[in-house]
Amino acid sequence: MKLKRWTTRPGDHVEHIGEHGDAGGAPLDTNTTTSSSEGLRYTRTHLGLHPHAPIAEEHDATKYSSLWWSKVRLALREPFAEFFGVMILVLFGDGAVAQVLLSKGQTSAPGGDGYGNYNAVSWGWAIGVMLGVYIAGDSGAYLNPAITFTNCLLRKLPWRRFPVYFLAQFLGGLVAAGIIYGNYVNAINAYEGHGVRTVPPSPTATAGIFCTYPQAYMTKASMFFSEFIASTILMFTIFALKDDTNNGVSQGGGNWFPLGLFFLIFGIGACFGVETGYAINLARDFGPRLMSYALGYGHEVWSAGGYYFWIPMVAPFCGCVFGGILYDAFIYTGPSPLNTEWLGLKDVVHPRQAIDERLRVQRKEGIV
Amino acid sequence: MKLKRWTTRPGDHVEHIGEHGDAGGAPLDTNTTTSSSEGLRYTRTHLGLHPHAPIAEEHDATKYSSLWWSKVRLALREPFAEFFGVMILVLFGDGAVAQVLLSKGQTSAPGGDGYGNYNAVSWGWAIGVMLGVYIAGDSGAYLNPAITFTNCLLRKLPWRRFPVYFLAQFLGGLVAAGIIYGNYVNAINAYEGHGVRTVPPSPTATAGIFCTYPQAYMTKASMFFSEFIASTILMFTIFALKDDTNNGVSQGGGNWFPLGLFFLIFGIGACFGVETGYAINLARDFGPRLMSYALGYGHEVWSAGGYYFWIPMVAPFCGCVFGGILYDAFIYTGPSPLNTEWLGLKDVVHPRQAIDERLRVQRKEGIV
Amino acid sequence: MKLKRWTTRPGDHVEHIGEHGDAGGAPLDTNTTTSSSEGLRYTRTHLGLHPHAPIAEEHDATKYSSLWWSKVRLALREPFAEFFGVMILVLFGDGAVAQVLLSKGQTSAPGGDGYGNYNAVSWGWAIGVMLGVYIAGDSGAYLNPAITFTNCLLRKLPWRRFPVYFLAQFLGGLVAAGIIYGNYVNAINAYEGHGVRTVPPSPTATAGIFCTYPQAYMTKASMFFSEFIASTILMFTIFALKDDTNNGVSQGGGNWFPLGLFFLIFGIGACFGVETGYAINLARDFGPRLMSYALGYGHEVWSAGGYYFWIPMVAPFCGCVFGGILYDAFIYTGPSPLNTEWLGLKDVVHPRQAIDERLRVQRKEGIV
Amino acid sequence: MKLKRWTTRPGDHVEHIGEHGDAGGAPLDTNTTTSSSEGLRYTRTHLGLHPHAPIAEEHDATKYSSLWWSKVRLALREPFAEFFGVMILVLFGDGAVAQVLLSKGQTSAPGGDGYGNYNAVSWGWAIGVMLGVYIAGDSGAYLNPAITFTNCLLRKLPWRRFPVYFLAQFLGGLVAAGIIYGNYVNAINAYEGHGVRTVPPSPTATAGIFCTYPQAYMTKASMFFSEFIASTILMFTIFALKDDTNNGVSQGGGNWFPLGLFFLIFGIGACFGVETGYAINLARDFGPRLMSYALGYGHEVWSAGGYYFWIPMVAPFCGCVFGGILYDAFIYTGPSPLNTEWLGLKDVVHPRQAIDERLRVQRKEGIV
Repeated sequence: MKLKRWTTRPGDHVEHIGEHGDAGGAPLDTNTTTSSSEGLRYTRTHLGLHPHAPIAEEHDATKYSSLWWSKVRLALREPFAEFFGVMILVLFGDGAVAQVLLSKGQTSAPGGDGYGNYNAVSWGWAIGVMLGVYIAGDSGAYLNPAITFTNCLLRKLPWRRFPVYFLAQFLGGLVAAGIIYGNYVNAINAYEGHGVRTVPPSPTATAGIFCTYPQAYMTKASMFFSEFIASTILMFTIFALKDDTNNGVSQGGGNWFPLGLFFLIFGIGACFGVETGYAINLARDFGPRLMSYALGYGHEVWSAGGYYFWIPMVAPFCGCVFGGILYDAFIYTGPSPLNTEWLGLKDVVHPRQAIDERLRVQRKEGIV
Repeated sequence: MKLKRWTTRPGDHVEHIGEHGDAGGAPLDTNTTTSSSEGLRYTRTHLGLHPHAPIAEEHDATKYSSLWWSKVRLALREPFAEFFGVMILVLFGDGAVAQVLLSKGQTSAPGGDGYGNYNAVSWGWAIGVMLGVYIAGDSGAYLNPAITFTNCLLRKLPWRRFPVYFLAQFLGGLVAAGIIYGNYVNAINAYEGHGVRTVPPSPTATAGIFCTYPQAYMTKASMFFSEFIASTILMFTIFALKDDTNNGVSQGGGNWFPLGLFFLIFGIGACFGVETGYAINLARDFGPRLMSYALGYGHEVWSAGGYYFWIPMVAPFCGCVFGGILYDAFIYTGPSPLNTEWLGLKDVVHPRQAIDERLRVQRKEGIV
Repeated sequence: MKLKRWTTRPGDHVEHIGEHGDAGGAPLDTNTTTSSSEGLRYTRTHLGLHPHAPIAEEHDATKYSSLWWSKVRLALREPFAEFFGVMILVLFGDGAVAQVLLSKGQTSAPGGDGYGNYNAVSWGWAIGVMLGVYIAGDSGAYLNPAITFTNCLLRKLPWRRFPVYFLAQFLGGLVAAGIIYGNYVNAINAYEGHGVRTVPPSPTATAGIFCTYPQAYMTKASMFFSEFIASTILMFTIFALKDDTNNGVSQGGGNWFPLGLFFLIFGIGACFGVETGYAINLARDFGPRLMSYALGYGHEVWSAGGYYFWIPMVAPFCGCVFGGILYDAFIYTGPSPLNTEWLGLKDVVHPRQAIDERLRVQRKEGIV
Repeated sequence: MKLKRWTTRPGDHVEHIGEHGDAGGAPLDTNTTTSSSEGLRYTRTHLGLHPHAPIAEEHDATKYSSLWWSKVRLALREPFAEFFGVMILVLFGDGAVAQVLLSKGQTSAPGGDGYGNYNAVSWGWAIGVMLGVYIAGDSGAYLNPAITFTNCLLRKLPWRRFPVYFLAQFLGGLVAAGIIYGNYVNAINAYEGHGVRTVPPSPTATAGIFCTYPQAYMTKASMFFSEFIASTILMFTIFALKDDTNNGVSQGGGNWFPLGLFFLIFGIGACFGVETGYAINLARDFGPRLMSYALGYGHEVWSAGGYYFWIPMVAPFCGCVFGGILYDAFIYTGPSPLNTEWLGLKDVVHPRQAIDERLRVQRKEGIV
């Protein structure tokens, strides 16, 4: 039983990180602290980049484990966290676009020029990510398949978590887009005309509320590059924000992470958002795109921009992996495949062997 | 006498709050921490969601208890806190709307286009809530009847606090709206014409300074849904921000709560504010609405939007309760009715019994 | 010699506050910590509302006291701090107004509509106050004569500090306005015409860069009320932000104070800034006004708005005192005249006696 | 061999950083803290102003030192940090200008008026600097040759680091400008016309994306003064933000530094950005200028504004040194040349002697 293994294995290396955290009360009674609580303390510090988020807490497991719903929750705790994290992310993000777009130029608004400008879109996505991290802490708060993937690759997050997280993240985006549609359906009718639903470059297009569409002047290569570079910056900076060995990061790193992420996402929106709408996240783009297709926006949601839709699905993976490698190669000093012999290329040459090795280690640590 | 019980317990909380601060200076006398200090520790960390905020501090009770005003203050400490908290909230919020609306397009402003745009409205409400929490910490800083209600329901806040808090919150909003009117009366006269007071959809309406009015294109169901979904997000995220067992929340949770709340309110304003003005709070909407009625805005403050006024009174309760249940059902692992047997439904089936049980526990703890 | 007294007097009551600060390492070796370091630690926590800011630090006093400049600095340390604090405050604040006003509608700006809007003015003043607090910590960072005054009245700041701080604050504003003029003189010439300097309501007025001018529709009473209410909110909220006994304030209160102040000033600018320009500070308004008079803006700097200039000099004092009394009467539980017998009115009835009593205490503590 | 000295000292810093964190777990073994750990404590707290950032960490040096790339990284760790720090800085900063400028007035944007206004430019640069500090912590995060220079002069940063840092910072800006060009090349073509590249005051100029150009009304002296005063404020405030002996600075100073810097840079952009574009940094201006020249913007990148290009290269050095001296002379109480005999002028009179003395001390401490 994996929970057992979590709580009974001897204190692993992360204990020491725990000890000098904010907590501090530990010095005299470290020996009374169980290893499981140590493990959980560690998680709090390494939010979002932790190789293995905790699966259960003691009081949860012991006290309520006999209730049916508690069992379900225990089994699905992490997918639930990712689902609601991405849902909040997309609710705020898509909500911001909807509000700004649908109230364009409305003179009865305070100020006489609509309920927000592009700046509010940057605010919305940045707040969504920040609050999503607060909500999804139990799963590690990845909220983005490309970030989950890069953490599997470079930070030893077990690969078998990837498909589950992926599904939860995708569904979170899908559901959130549906809620936004339900909330703004009257405004969309008032803006486009009753029942009319169009996709850019239609002048009254509202499909941009849900997912991203590229500027008309963009070439396919430029679209890809734009998403790639934004994703690279995203992963590079997140790795920096989570890197305890980087002197630039605050001592109470975990506390500052959501705020740092707010500024990062705001910056990407304000500085790299014009060309392709900074999707940088399959869950944030594909889920809502599918929902908008289901809601009647037509086949153009796929064909617009020369079948642009696959770029925000693929480019974030490439960009995040590249950004992660860049960080590990030039800044990171902790354990990364790039800091091992052959610069990690051994894994590429003998992938089977690398996977076996990793699985062996993970099984030994009881975290798969 | 409840105050007695609070003040005569051995450990007084001022000392203990110090000891278990970030410091960790506690190690040597952890065993001397009484359960009362435990309760109070909870208070500082769980700002805004605490089942029972402290009612008195020792130096207050002992040194000045003979003074008439000190006695009044001791008795009314929590209502005072809620009153001033909501007052600051509405002063900033309504003030922002007033400034932006009344200076619309003014060319003599720096920048030549009025003293702020819709963005400033988001700032105003978010700052108001943030500062209101700083001010109303002694009562738990609920500042919203729907949030008080949900905490009574799911976080064991004693029900008998609800009516007192409700009244204080309502009066805080009422008084603040009066101050805003007094402050901006000249500007309103200049904007509408001397003595003219109109309600949307009048093109020069200023009633929107005080309370919310829906967009013309909204149906009744959509209005309700818009307030409902915003309230759901509000409560869901506040529960997350206060949840120490959620790994996403900072270790120094209480310190970060007001800032997190700033972003949450800003986000709701920027992403869900266009349709119904994101009242999400009876005290913020009904109090000022009544004041604007008293100040001569006429019967339209009630009839506008098809007697919309009841929606921001009712929907926040529904939304907050739903958001709280959602959080407890899917994310929360602490003690909640939803984590007990029957998923808390036992309380619904036997309400009398549940209330008795709760009162019994509270009386034992001396906090009613 | 007062410095001596600081360092040799036995540990005063503030030690305990020090002990449970972030520091925490203290429990075992408190006895080895000298009282002077305790006093200084206390200061850090109570930034801005401390009854007596520290005058010297040990290494400063002992190591460099023989140098001429070091002696000057030691004697003038606090005025220097207030001077530079207010200077930074006004540099950012007036700078923001200058940039936004002088670049109005400039199409060559990025975005094509000038270098900022009114929102940037709120940012500028809020950042100025925040950074001013960081700079002027050694004097308590009052930065505003009305706030100094209220602290003398209600928080036992020695009255004899008031005139020195007042002068330093006034000069800081004066000098900063001169620097802003020097920096923007070309832009002013380009905007108004070479050598032309006008005051509102002139359509090309630039005097508003330096100090505040009221809206044309305002009556004298409304102007006063507008400054009064904004100052009341300022002081009320600052007292809350500094109140360690308020559960709403973070445990690491001092760390959060500058950020909280940023939001407070931003909020006042965004919500109460349109009518009189939210001077709320004699040093910020009168100093620059005098400078603009000296620079040739003519007699209108005084006569504009019906000799409005005295209102931002007087109203902030009334408002801040009222706000302080309000906080102490309804929320504060610490030592305040309002929590003593007669609700502090004894001091009003027998002022001479009260002053003598206070001086006696201060002399005993060696802090005058 | 300096690395040897670092890595073989008894106390390794990872452990000690933990011990003296917020935790306060230290009480029992304070006496075991070696002087080396003291130095490193300084590093984490004094981010950005530290005389000698750590060069290696033990696990890095011992475990991977045999790998070729690890050796390169160890040798170039600090230049890499400065390179990527400045790169992120310029990516966000130039990216913000590009997005706002190239989408000017675009009606298909949400809100109908482009993807951001000047405000977004302030956001971009402020976020860039903030995230750059997070990334470049291993080198001290100077990110600006003028700041490096002032730290060499007044904070004992070894002079021999200056040229290496200078080169890394310059290259970081150069490369980032190239990436921005690659990302926005389609948009530039759409904005200016295919292959057309112009420099202000051309109405469709896009050279302003990369580096700064002055307003047409500026005289040469005013340009210099504008950059000078902004740089003075920059250095003065950074010294304040890093000054642990300043009571205004938070106890957890290092944690708050990046956020404080965000507000500082935002403020400079919003208050002193209109006249010369607030370059205040050779690396941010000269690097991208050279890149834009290489990319075909023509000789005007140098000749524009009357060969203005040298001002953002020289003025920041003058301003930063002046700002540093100002702070040390009036506020700082720590060790500074200005707090020594002769007010530090001895060093000017006998520079050779001063350099020798400094080198001698540094050699003794093993940090050159």
